Amino acid sequence: MRFNVSSELAYQFRSPGTLILNIHALKTSSQQILEEFFLVEPYFFYEELLSLSADNRFVRINVTEPSPLKLRYKATVDNSYTLLDPSDLYEVPLRDMDALVLSYLNPSRYCQSDKLYRLANNMFGHIENAFEKVLALTEWIYNNVEYLSGSTNSQTSAYDTVTEQAGVCRDFAHLGIALCRALTIPARYFTGYSYKLSPPDFHACFEAYLGGRWIIFDPTRLAPLNGLVKIATGRDAADTAIASIFGDVQFDAISVTCESAEDNFVPHSYTQLNARPLSYL
Amino acid sequence: MRFNVSSELAYQFRSPGTLILNIHALKTSSQQILEEFFLVEPYFFYEELLSLSADNRFVRINVTEPSPLKLRYKATVDNSYTLLDPSDLYEVPLRDMDALVLSYLNPSRYCQSDKLYRLANNMFGHIENAFEKVLALTEWIYNNVEYLSGSTNSQTSAYDTVTEQAGVCRDFAHLGIALCRALTIPARYFTGYSYKLSPPDFHACFEAYLGGRWIIFDPTRLAPLNGLVKIATGRDAADTAIASIFGDVQFDAISVTCESAEDNFVPHSYTQLNARPLSYL
Amino acid sequence: MRFNVSSELAYQFRSPGTLILNIHALKTSSQQILEEFFLVEPYFFYEELLSLSADNRFVRINVTEPSPLKLRYKATVDNSYTLLDPSDLYEVPLRDMDALVLSYLNPSRYCQSDKLYRLANNMFGHIENAFEKVLALTEWIYNNVEYLSGSTNSQTSAYDTVTEQAGVCRDFAHLGIALCRALTIPARYFTGYSYKLSPPDFHACFEAYLGGRWIIFDPTRLAPLNGLVKIATGRDAADTAIASIFGDVQFDAISVTCESAEDNFVPHSYTQLNARPLSYL
Amino acid sequence: MRFNVSSELAYQFRSPGTLILNIHALKTSSQQILEEFFLVEPYFFYEELLSLSADNRFVRINVTEPSPLKLRYKATVDNSYTLLDPSDLYEVPLRDMDALVLSYLNPSRYCQSDKLYRLANNMFGHIENAFEKVLALTEWIYNNVEYLSGSTNSQTSAYDTVTEQAGVCRDFAHLGIALCRALTIPARYFTGYSYKLSPPDFHACFEAYLGGRWIIFDPTRLAPLNGLVKIATGRDAADTAIASIFGDVQFDAISVTCESAEDNFVPHSYTQLNARPLSYL
Repeated sequence: MRFNVSSELAYQFRSPGTLILNIHALKTSSQQILEEFFLVEPYFFYEELLSLSADNRFVRINVTEPSPLKLRYKATVDNSYTLLDPSDLYEVPLRDMDALVLSYLNPSRYCQSDKLYRLANNMFGHIENAFEKVLALTEWIYNNVEYLSGSTNSQTSAYDTVTEQAGVCRDFAHLGIALCRALTIPARYFTGYSYKLSPPDFHACFEAYLGGRWIIFDPTRLAPLNGLVKIATGRDAADTAIASIFGDVQFDAISVTCESAEDNFVPHSYTQLNARPLSYL
Repeated sequence: MRFNVSSELAYQFRSPGTLILNIHALKTSSQQILEEFFLVEPYFFYEELLSLSADNRFVRINVTEPSPLKLRYKATVDNSYTLLDPSDLYEVPLRDMDALVLSYLNPSRYCQSDKLYRLANNMFGHIENAFEKVLALTEWIYNNVEYLSGSTNSQTSAYDTVTEQAGVCRDFAHLGIALCRALTIPARYFTGYSYKLSPPDFHACFEAYLGGRWIIFDPTRLAPLNGLVKIATGRDAADTAIASIFGDVQFDAISVTCESAEDNFVPHSYTQLNARPLSYL
Repeated sequence: MRFNVSSELAYQFRSPGTLILNIHALKTSSQQILEEFFLVEPYFFYEELLSLSADNRFVRINVTEPSPLKLRYKATVDNSYTLLDPSDLYEVPLRDMDALVLSYLNPSRYCQSDKLYRLANNMFGHIENAFEKVLALTEWIYNNVEYLSGSTNSQTSAYDTVTEQAGVCRDFAHLGIALCRALTIPARYFTGYSYKLSPPDFHACFEAYLGGRWIIFDPTRLAPLNGLVKIATGRDAADTAIASIFGDVQFDAISVTCESAEDNFVPHSYTQLNARPLSYL
Repeated sequence: MRFNVSSELAYQFRSPGTLILNIHALKTSSQQILEEFFLVEPYFFYEELLSLSADNRFVRINVTEPSPLKLRYKATVDNSYTLLDPSDLYEVPLRDMDALVLSYLNPSRYCQSDKLYRLANNMFGHIENAFEKVLALTEWIYNNVEYLSGSTNSQTSAYDTVTEQAGVCRDFAHLGIALCRALTIPARYFTGYSYKLSPPDFHACFEAYLGGRWIIFDPTRLAPLNGLVKIATGRDAADTAIASIFGDVQFDAISVTCESAEDNFVPHSYTQLNARPLSYL
C-alpha cells in the first residue's frame, strides 16, 4: 500500500536550543520510502540519527539563536503487512526470546507492568490463547477508558490510566503495553501516521510479540490497522517522543496528513468476525 | 586491579519456570575476565545472552520441573580505570551525543526525570561546572537520604525517594540518575561486585556522561569507587535486575564476595580533597 | 450480645514522648460498656479524649522519660445491632444528608475517591439497588484483592490497592470506602474488636450510608458481621489509628482477644441467601 | 476592618443535580456579617448547613430540572485580627492539644504529611522557634514552587507539589500544611475572599497552631495577610471546596471581588522586618 504522509510543526525558540524530532517514516524491510522531503525553516544545521535497534530514525536540529522554526516533512511510503492465522499466535516461551525481545518485558517509565501483575492476571490470566488474551485486554481498554482530549499530560502513565480510565491514544497504548508485559507478553509502543484518523494527527498504538512476530493492536479503534505508516517503535513514549525540546521554546502549531495513494484500500480491524492478526514486520 | 568475585543464589522452584540472571562480570575493553566458573545445580539447560548494546551479559535458565536450584558464580577479573581532570568534565552539548547516549536522557521506570525538572534545576541548576553539579547532587543524596534496609521494595522509584528520603543503594542510584537527567546530563545505572562493601552484597551506583566519558558516582559512599567490578549498565534496575523470575519460585539465600587479588589497593573516593573523577570505560 | 475484649501493647520509649491510643470500646446508644479496665505500666499521666463527633474515644499518655511501656485494656461490652430489609436501603438523596454525613463523601488520605470516579461507575454504576451495589463492590474486592500480610504499609491507600490487588483488612476497607464515595454513597472506616477473627487482632471494615443508616460491610469475609465491638469510626485509618506515636519509640508486642460472653452466637454474613443488612447504630 | 465581598458563579445543569457551595463568609467571634445577600437564579430550593466544627458554612441547592443556574453572593463583613509577639508562639506540646486540634495533625487527601516526615525534618527540623520554623517552610515554598495557572488540577496534592514545584494557591497551601504536620505542628486549610489579590479570585492559604492560636500563613505572598475574609477552614481542599457538583453540569463563569470599606488599610506581611504573627481567631 502506498501512502502520502506529511507533517508540519512550528515553534518559537526564545533562546538557542535543540530539537529532537521523531517524525520521519522508518525504513524497514516492509516499509520503503519512495520519496522524502524535509525542510527546516530558517535553516539550522541538523543531522539524522538512528537508534541502536534501528527502530527509530530521528533528526536533531541545533538552533543557534532565538528564532521561529518551521519543520516540514513529506514522504511517499510503500508499506506491506502480513495477515496471520490466529492459531499461529501462541505465547512465545521465554526460552525462545532473544535479548531484545526480552527487554520488552521490562517495566518502563509509562508502562509500570510490575505494578499491574495481579490485576492483569485476575482479569485476563484465564484466557488460554495468547492472541485472544491481547484482544481481550485491548477490548477492555476500548470499553472502559474514555477517549478524552486534554484529560492527561506528558507525565500520565499506565498506572494512572488503569484507574482513572480517561486519556488519549498514547495512554491507551501505554495501558495495553503494561497489561501485556504483566502477562509475560513482550509489548512495545508504536507511533506513526494513520490513514483515516479523525481529526488527523500522529497516532500511537502498540505491538505484542505473539507467535514470534510483532502484531499490531489499537485499543482506541480510531483508525484501520492496515493504514499505519510506522515512525518508530520503542519501550514507550519516552523512547519515541514526536519532539524532545531543550531550551526556552514555545510550541505554535502542528498539522499532520496521511492519504492513501491507491484506490483499493479495504480497512482491516479486529472487530470483524474471524479477523486475522496483522503484522507490519 | 585484580578482583576475585563470587556469588551464590538458592531458590525453590515450586513449578517449572525461567530464571534470568544478571550476575556475570561484564567483558569490556577495560575489564577482562581471567577465569570464570558458573554452575547450575541441579543442571538445567541455560544459555548466555548479551544485550544489544553489549552492556549486559545475562544467563537464562529453563527450569523444566519443580526443584531446588543453586547457582554458583566465581570469577577473577582484571579491571582498569582512568582518573580524569575535573576541568575536562564539561557538560556535553546535545549536538555531540550519539543516539545511545541521548537515550540515557529519557525518563525510565525508576528514574522519572520528567517529574523532577524544576526541583533539580532549583537545587543544582546554578552550579556551572558539570562535574561539580553531579558531585553536589550526589552529596545531597548522601546527606538527606537515610540508608535503611527494608524501607523500600522493587517498586520504589526516584520519585518516591526524593520525598521519602530513605532507601538502599538501588534507590540512591535511581535518584542520582533522575536528577542528572532532569539537568540534561545523561546518566545510567551500574550494578556490580563491590570491594569492601559491608555487609557484602551486590552493589548499585550510577554513571554520568561528562566530558564525553561515563564517570562513576556512588551516593551511598559505602565502598571505594575503584573497587567495582561491573556486571551491567542500563537505564535503571529494570534493565539490570540481578534475577528476573518467572514461575512459582521462592527465594532462599544469597551470598556475595569481592576480594582484591593484589596487595596495593588504595581506596578512591570523591570526599578526598581535589579528588579526581573516575571512569571505568 | 456480650463480648469480653482485651488488648495488650508493649513499647520501648527511648526518649520522652506521647502515645495516642485508640483501643477503648466506644460508648454508643447500642454499645454499652459493662466493665472496663485500663492500665499503664509503669504509670504515666494519661487522659481520655473524645472526638468532636463522638465516634472516637482515645487516650493520650505522656511518657516523660525513657522507659518500657505496657498498656492493658479489658472490657465487657453489651452490643446490639439491627437487621434490616434490603429493600429499605435506598440510596439517600444528597438533599437528605446532614453536614456530617456529607463529609463522608469527601476523598480522604487513604480513600481517594476523586480518582476512582470512572472506574467505580464503569464497574458498579449500572446496579440499581444501593445495597446490591455496595454488596457487589465488596464482593469484587473479596474476589480480586489477595489478603497478604506484610504486602502493604501505613502509607498504602485505596488508589494503590485497586491496582496492586493485595493487602490487609485496612486496605480492603479503604478500597470499599473509596468505591462507595466515588458512587456518591457516604462511607466511613470502622475499627473494632472482632469475634472469631483468626489470628486474633484488631479488625477494620467499613460502613456505608444506605436508607438513612450506617450499614456494615467487610470485604475480607474473615469474621462474622455481628461479632464486632466498635472502637471508632472515621474517614479512614488516619482518623482511627490504633496507636499514634510521637518520639523515639520501638514497638515490641501486641495481643488482642475478643470472646463471646454468651452461648448462642449465630454468625451473620452477607454470603447467606437473602442475607439481611446489619447496622450497629 | 470592613470588607465588601461578592461572588458570582454560573453553571449549566444538563440534568437535575445538586450543588454544594462554600462561598458564604463564615460567622465567628472575630468576623461579623453586617449585611448579606444570596440569590439563586432561577430559584431552586436551597438550605444552609453548618459543619459540626462550625468552621464551614455551606449551601446546598437542589436543581430539580435541567437549567442554567446563576448564584450571586454579596456581603459586608467586619473582621478583626490579633497581632502577636513571635516569642509567644511556642510549639504547643501534644498534651495541651484538644481532640479537634490533634485531628489537624492527621494526614489528609491532599496533605500526605506521613510521606514527608524525613524531608520536613531534614529541611526544617533544626529550627528551634516554632514560628520561625513555619516561616522558613513558607519561604521555601515561595522561593521554589512556581505559581503557574493551569499546571495542576483538582487531584494534585502536596506529595506532587513538593517534587514538581509548580501550582496555584491551593497547592501552595496544601504543601505548607503537609510540611507543618510532618513537623508535628497542627495545620489547616483556609479559604476566603482576599483584598488586593490580582487577578481577583477566591484565595487559599493555611493556618498553623502555634502558642495555642491559629496563625495565618500565605506561601504565595500574593495578597496582604490582613485582607482576608474567611469562608471556611478544614483539613484541606476536600473539606472546603468552593463548589461540589453532582450531576451533569458545565461550569460557565466565575467572578469574585473583595474591597476594603475603609480608607486606612495598611497591608501586613511577614516579609517586613520584625513582622508580627497574625491570627484571625
